[in-house]
Amino acid sequence: MVNLTPNPSFSLTVRVQLSNRVGTLGILTQAIGMAGGNIGQIDVVEQNRKTLVRDLTIDASSTEQAETIVQAIKTVQDVRVLSVSDRTFDLHRGGKIRVQSKIPLRHQDDLAMAYTPGVARICRAIAEDPNKVHTLTMKSNTVAIVTDGSAVLGLGNLGPAGALPVMEGKAMLFREFADINAFPICLDTQDTEAIVKTVKNLAPVFGGVNLEDISAPRCFEIERRLQQELQIPIFHDDQHGTAVVSLAALLNALRLVKKSMDTVRIVINGAGAAGVAIARLLRKAGATQILMCDSRGIISRDRTNLTFEKQEFAIEESGSLADAMQNSDVFLGVSVPDVVTVEMVKSMADAPIVFAMANPIPEIQPELICDCVAVMATGRSDYANQINNVLAFPGIFRGALDCRATNMTTKMYLEAAGAIASLVKSTELDAEHIIPSVFDPRVVPAVSAAVQYAARQDGVAEC
Amino acid sequence: MVNLTPNPSFSLTVRVQLSNRVGTLGILTQAIGMAGGNIGQIDVVEQNRKTLVRDLTIDASSTEQAETIVQAIKTVQDVRVLSVSDRTFDLHRGGKIRVQSKIPLRHQDDLAMAYTPGVARICRAIAEDPNKVHTLTMKSNTVAIVTDGSAVLGLGNLGPAGALPVMEGKAMLFREFADINAFPICLDTQDTEAIVKTVKNLAPVFGGVNLEDISAPRCFEIERRLQQELQIPIFHDDQHGTAVVSLAALLNALRLVKKSMDTVRIVINGAGAAGVAIARLLRKAGATQILMCDSRGIISRDRTNLTFEKQEFAIEESGSLADAMQNSDVFLGVSVPDVVTVEMVKSMADAPIVFAMANPIPEIQPELICDCVAVMATGRSDYANQINNVLAFPGIFRGALDCRATNMTTKMYLEAAGAIASLVKSTELDAEHIIPSVFDPRVVPAVSAAVQYAARQDGVAEC
Repeated sequence: MVNLTPNPSFSLTVRVQLSNRVGTLGILTQAIGMAGGNIGQIDVVEQNRKTLVRDLTIDASSTEQAETIVQAIKTVQDVRVLSVSDRTFDLHRGGKIRVQSKIPLRHQDDLAMAYTPGVARICRAIAEDPNKVHTLTMKSNTVAIVTDGSAVLGLGNLGPAGALPVMEGKAMLFREFADINAFPICLDTQDTEAIVKTVKNLAPVFGGVNLEDISAPRCFEIERRLQQELQIPIFHDDQHGTAVVSLAALLNALRLVKKSMDTVRIVINGAGAAGVAIARLLRKAGATQILMCDSRGIISRDRTNLTFEKQEFAIEESGSLADAMQNSDVFLGVSVPDVVTVEMVKSMADAPIVFAMANPIPEIQPELICDCVAVMATGRSDYANQINNVLAFPGIFRGALDCRATNMTTKMYLEAAGAIASLVKSTELDAEHIIPSVFDPRVVPAVSAAVQYAARQDGVAEC
Repeated sequence: MVNLTPNPSFSLTVRVQLSNRVGTLGILTQAIGMAGGNIGQIDVVEQNRKTLVRDLTIDASSTEQAETIVQAIKTVQDVRVLSVSDRTFDLHRGGKIRVQSKIPLRHQDDLAMAYTPGVARICRAIAEDPNKVHTLTMKSNTVAIVTDGSAVLGLGNLGPAGALPVMEGKAMLFREFADINAFPICLDTQDTEAIVKTVKNLAPVFGGVNLEDISAPRCFEIERRLQQELQIPIFHDDQHGTAVVSLAALLNALRLVKKSMDTVRIVINGAGAAGVAIARLLRKAGATQILMCDSRGIISRDRTNLTFEKQEFAIEESGSLADAMQNSDVFLGVSVPDVVTVEMVKSMADAPIVFAMANPIPEIQPELICDCVAVMATGRSDYANQINNVLAFPGIFRGALDCRATNMTTKMYLEAAGAIASLVKSTELDAEHIIPSVFDPRVVPAVSAAVQYAARQDGVAEC
């Protein structure tokens, strides 16, 4: 496997004691560089005539390489390693979110209004007019992030506890990007019926449900059932978040290479939740030639035992992923690391567009093909053109909650994708900038407005 | 019904325009006083030569009286009411809690560590060693506040939405008093089996479960089943929170009147969750004469169709609540407003102790009997001796989470009550001060330590 670029997800803080002599730091930093470590901040913690204590922040590209770096530091003369801490683990310790009171509770008066006896009047008001739950409680700004841990990132079935760090991270994103309360619900069941029942039982507190990391094909039925049986919007982010951002990025990539959605040949590798949702949304956006592939190659009509969703995209053509990619204009990967080779990319049509979105490691490393593609994108935050759902879900939920949508609709997704794409002006559009940064403050308001517009058009907005 | 003391739970902010002339405010405040309003803060909002705009904070004693006060203000010459807002409703608008990120997300680096790709390493670490969920996620400091809305405060079956303001308030208390993340789970089912299944499905995210406002007798089975089937502490606050604080208060009240637990005659009115739990805990604390009453009077052996829990306390004696109270030393009410009369209190033994804990309106108003009892307590924050669960549950959960208790045990409750009672020194103990203030910062550490001690003794502490 190719060496990845060092990045902060394998970042260390190493505390070292150096002899206080000119040149020691130079030798140390050189040793770290030789071992492949990318040095960030260097702080002085303590200093006396003989020694210096420093904290060094070092990005590595893997856990193994981090270990190599530490070993390299230990061999440097006059340097002693005092402690090594993994910055990512440090950040996650004790969890990443907290439930906070919006109002201070300092006096009896605060208690008397926020809790008993005052709260009784609020409860009665809601019991008498159920609609008041939207204004007098957290409901209208609160989303459940529901998972069963069956398809955590690209890592597979880690179960509910293994999924919790992702759901906490997601809750952070909801708060930071859309000012929404989101809370992780990691279910100790992977039974479709039990998940549907449990989420229905929880629904009174929530204004919407974000389904996350639930494996296909169960995710399709769970979403459909919940949307039928509840009057709040249900959104499976792995499907629709990915589809919306992929479509937004593709709209701009096509603008750049001057090709048209209805004539390009598009390979989608991965026929799970994301792949199916992307294919469905691209069709609605005008795509006509879609070759869906799974681990067995092109999903062809002559294959047997296809799931309902795969049948939807089965075509006459058959063959391997490599066959599919030949002369294709677009590759969209939502599958597993390293399944695409340089040769496969080189076999594509002119000005190929490659979105290698497998998480956390893409279908092919961008470093390998940066010279032979027109546009390259991944799902990672540490490369250009990050196709990240955080461009979609915060604004989609902001919009859906603000107009009290009872459903999510395809039109809402299409409008959201259009809004994201439109934020990249023609003068800014280039191969390294086909979508806005996730930190672009215009994204959430633009997506939210587009989603509300579509919800009203579709008649699913309640206010 | 007697007029209650004005209190902040019926508090108004009235914005008025007065002519800027000496004496106008005097006339206005007099009018408010005559209508029974208790004036708090008075602010000047705007002032010119002719007029003044002021905000007046006014406590009333009921919604009706608040209306009377506003009408009274409107009749005052040279005063115009610009707006009236209900401070309690204002405080609840949009909900009272928020889910907050503990770490800022400002750069790609933050995302790469908190979310993908960095979070993948955390997920894998937990999947490989499930014990790490306690250190690398929010679980070990997070409690679910679970209700089905079947017994909300003293108001009855308001359903899950009507219960949500109480659960949000409870979450505030968990945060403010014990620095615990608590999240409202208001269930859209009142079926015992469905509640048990739903809570079990949710459990992976939580280090403990606080059951709240679930009606008897279902609450007993739900708690028992969950405690059997889950390895995290389950605590029905209406039972044990109330029992712990009642016992703490009673220990000190008995100290004050120099009577002993094993010789006093105790009437408990209300045989729901709280009444049964109080009776059980008092027995464990040495009480021998307990007369349980429900709406039909003393729970006597000759009554039929008694629930399992009521049978546990059925006695030879029979009669009405008034009969039970004759010559009793202690009255503990966890029932409904206004069921106790002055005569009933006067029929009690010397130096009677009356805890009228019905919420939000007590069994008898303290104003009516302040001269004929040795000790009076209520559940309200606006009278002396507030028997409020907030003295118990934050410290109990703090202790249980900190030692990773797998269960709640009776010993934990007894120790918690002892710890609360012991915070009132003999020199401080008097009829108006039998328990510490809910704002006493010693309470949570004292209760937490006592609970951890008991958990270790009982062998239920995992760390």
